[in-house]
Amino acid sequence: MYKVNDNYLKLPGSYLFSTIGKKVKAYAAAHPDRKIIRLGIGDVTQPLAPAIIKALHGAVDEMGDAATFRGYAPDLGYEFLRNAIADNDYRARGCDISADEIFISDGAKCDSGNIQEIFSTDNRIAVCDPVYPVYVDTNVMAGRTGTYDPQKETWSNVIYMPCTRENDFVPELPKETPDIIYLCFPNNPTGSAITGRQLQEWVDYANRVGAVIIYDAAYEAYISQENIPHSIYECQGAKTCAIELRSFSKNAGFTGVRLGFTVIPRELKAGEVSLHSLWARRHGTKYNGAPYIVQRAGEAVYSEEGKAQLRQQVAYYMKNAAYIYHGLKDAGYEVSGGVNAPYIWLRAPRGMSSWEFFDYLLEKANVVGTPGSGFGPSGETYFRLTAFGSYENTVEAVERIKAL
Amino acid sequence: MYKVNDNYLKLPGSYLFSTIGKKVKAYAAAHPDRKIIRLGIGDVTQPLAPAIIKALHGAVDEMGDAATFRGYAPDLGYEFLRNAIADNDYRARGCDISADEIFISDGAKCDSGNIQEIFSTDNRIAVCDPVYPVYVDTNVMAGRTGTYDPQKETWSNVIYMPCTRENDFVPELPKETPDIIYLCFPNNPTGSAITGRQLQEWVDYANRVGAVIIYDAAYEAYISQENIPHSIYECQGAKTCAIELRSFSKNAGFTGVRLGFTVIPRELKAGEVSLHSLWARRHGTKYNGAPYIVQRAGEAVYSEEGKAQLRQQVAYYMKNAAYIYHGLKDAGYEVSGGVNAPYIWLRAPRGMSSWEFFDYLLEKANVVGTPGSGFGPSGETYFRLTAFGSYENTVEAVERIKAL
Repeated sequence: MYKVNDNYLKLPGSYLFSTIGKKVKAYAAAHPDRKIIRLGIGDVTQPLAPAIIKALHGAVDEMGDAATFRGYAPDLGYEFLRNAIADNDYRARGCDISADEIFISDGAKCDSGNIQEIFSTDNRIAVCDPVYPVYVDTNVMAGRTGTYDPQKETWSNVIYMPCTRENDFVPELPKETPDIIYLCFPNNPTGSAITGRQLQEWVDYANRVGAVIIYDAAYEAYISQENIPHSIYECQGAKTCAIELRSFSKNAGFTGVRLGFTVIPRELKAGEVSLHSLWARRHGTKYNGAPYIVQRAGEAVYSEEGKAQLRQQVAYYMKNAAYIYHGLKDAGYEVSGGVNAPYIWLRAPRGMSSWEFFDYLLEKANVVGTPGSGFGPSGETYFRLTAFGSYENTVEAVERIKAL
Repeated sequence: MYKVNDNYLKLPGSYLFSTIGKKVKAYAAAHPDRKIIRLGIGDVTQPLAPAIIKALHGAVDEMGDAATFRGYAPDLGYEFLRNAIADNDYRARGCDISADEIFISDGAKCDSGNIQEIFSTDNRIAVCDPVYPVYVDTNVMAGRTGTYDPQKETWSNVIYMPCTRENDFVPELPKETPDIIYLCFPNNPTGSAITGRQLQEWVDYANRVGAVIIYDAAYEAYISQENIPHSIYECQGAKTCAIELRSFSKNAGFTGVRLGFTVIPRELKAGEVSLHSLWARRHGTKYNGAPYIVQRAGEAVYSEEGKAQLRQQVAYYMKNAAYIYHGLKDAGYEVSGGVNAPYIWLRAPRGMSSWEFFDYLLEKANVVGTPGSGFGPSGETYFRLTAFGSYENTVEAVERIKAL
């Protein structure tokens, strides 16, 4: 008789967004006349930029003509896209990353979930608290996390690194030594950024203790300050300790288009074993390439036209972020994030818990956000708002909150 | 110090297609005047059908307009596509499969590689010999296959089920009891089909011994005979023992578009645990949906226009298959497949090994195929030709082989 992967059964229910959904639905049903503004989920709302639409149409036409039709893509991605990434995201910033160190995929969520597969199940992970749930859940599925404490909402074999206002939402080096360190900057959910000097400390630490850093830079396009690194490879020595994950979801609005990539430098080795080879083997065995038309859309992101249009798109969302940030700050809220990231992290007022504030905002202002406690214990009393709504709705939501 | 997943290091090199590539390249360099015809890799060559191109353009336009833009897709796929599949692929054939038992993905290769994750690593798998390498390799990566014997090219903990001319390339029930049984019909690489009665025996066996069948039906569109099941759910009792994998790659030419799906019936349970829930959890945690534009292209496959155009496309390839089959048979070759599948499986003549015949065909006829031994020990002395070339090249290749 076959048996299932018992590790899956250890996963607690994934209630955050379903609970939000249920509460909003119930409220809307009871108050059909109210206009609810959703600033909860991190999905984009602006349409794809014209340069990308043009590239998509062009590639679709190619697929309809026998002379230009493309079948299976190269496992690791088309050269035209890998070269555009290497040139624009790395060489232009002084990072020595070559096209063959870039693995094209259908998105950073998949990569951030799958990357743990190439490591031993004995390895111990360290994550920020609060954190994007995929890092931990996929390690639970692999059997790497020990037992779950439903009271504390933590796993016995995971090293949690609290990100609090005391450390400006950038974790300190952990006391226990991890094997695999997940870092995401600019951060989801706190919207915090890490400076080059701080990140260099992490790189030095990882090289010193023999840990590997999984660096999720999905929000790098939102960086507005000078001293904030866009890539971990801006740090000395990162090529011997770090894997970087990137996404087209937030810089180009590809949440429904699906494109991302992972960088694994050739120098990154566990003894004699190259992680680049292991990931290439995984990609070649379990994946079959991103669609040709989507890879052409990705290429257009790096065209002059595409860059100009996407700068505007990011600026649109960052105008929302600034409106939320300053509006709430003026209203007396304790606010962070929103300067180098599309997320605003705020403290619930008057000692409310995250969920109490969620209910309060929904009922009194008809605004939906995400309770910080849903991202981990250190998120309790915090609340996340996203800048991905329309400007008009964002302004209205902030005015309603200010009026409370 | 972090460690890697040692199971990856057990994998032997994946030499089949790279060796073919090197040999062809060397021959072409030495004989630049010769026209080499490639009937080796199973990639399609016909462009996407007009109905699909139209749907892609339409969906691209939607993505460029704020009013119709789509962000994150539902984890398990859009309802419009899941409904089209349930209606056309299942209900129309009398199979009681509902839309919510269908999980949309970016292709059958990914699903066939990932599906093993929801099972215990203690489970023992059974595979056909010869076999599509992804089934075994992904189980090696998970640590389920024991040790490799490089002489026999087999794994100690895998049950191999020989598919030979004696059993008409349909395996017999195994003597040892497996937990997970991989079956692919119409078969890659042999091109053989399984009858409804034969498949019913497998379903009864799986229900009796408590095994689960992973049924890969990626080539079902090529079935031309009446008594051949298109889905395992045409068998009584399949919903309590079988998962079915489907692809849009070969029926609609989506090898470079990427779309597939997996069916997991609600009744399929290991004790109290629903496999449907486990796969939904995996999909929701490690995957982020197929692109909206690609799902609209998938929907067009089921439109009246799409169906008519794709019937022609499949007929085009099957005309090639018939030409190869009859041409080689007339020339005295022992040939099978090609009737319900786009693959022709032939015996190398005069006691040649698979690779000897590969070299012989390349040098004497300038035709490239795939050595059967690359798919497993029982493939030795066999050879695979595909029907996915152009008609003109296919005719020329067959004439060259006949003239030898």
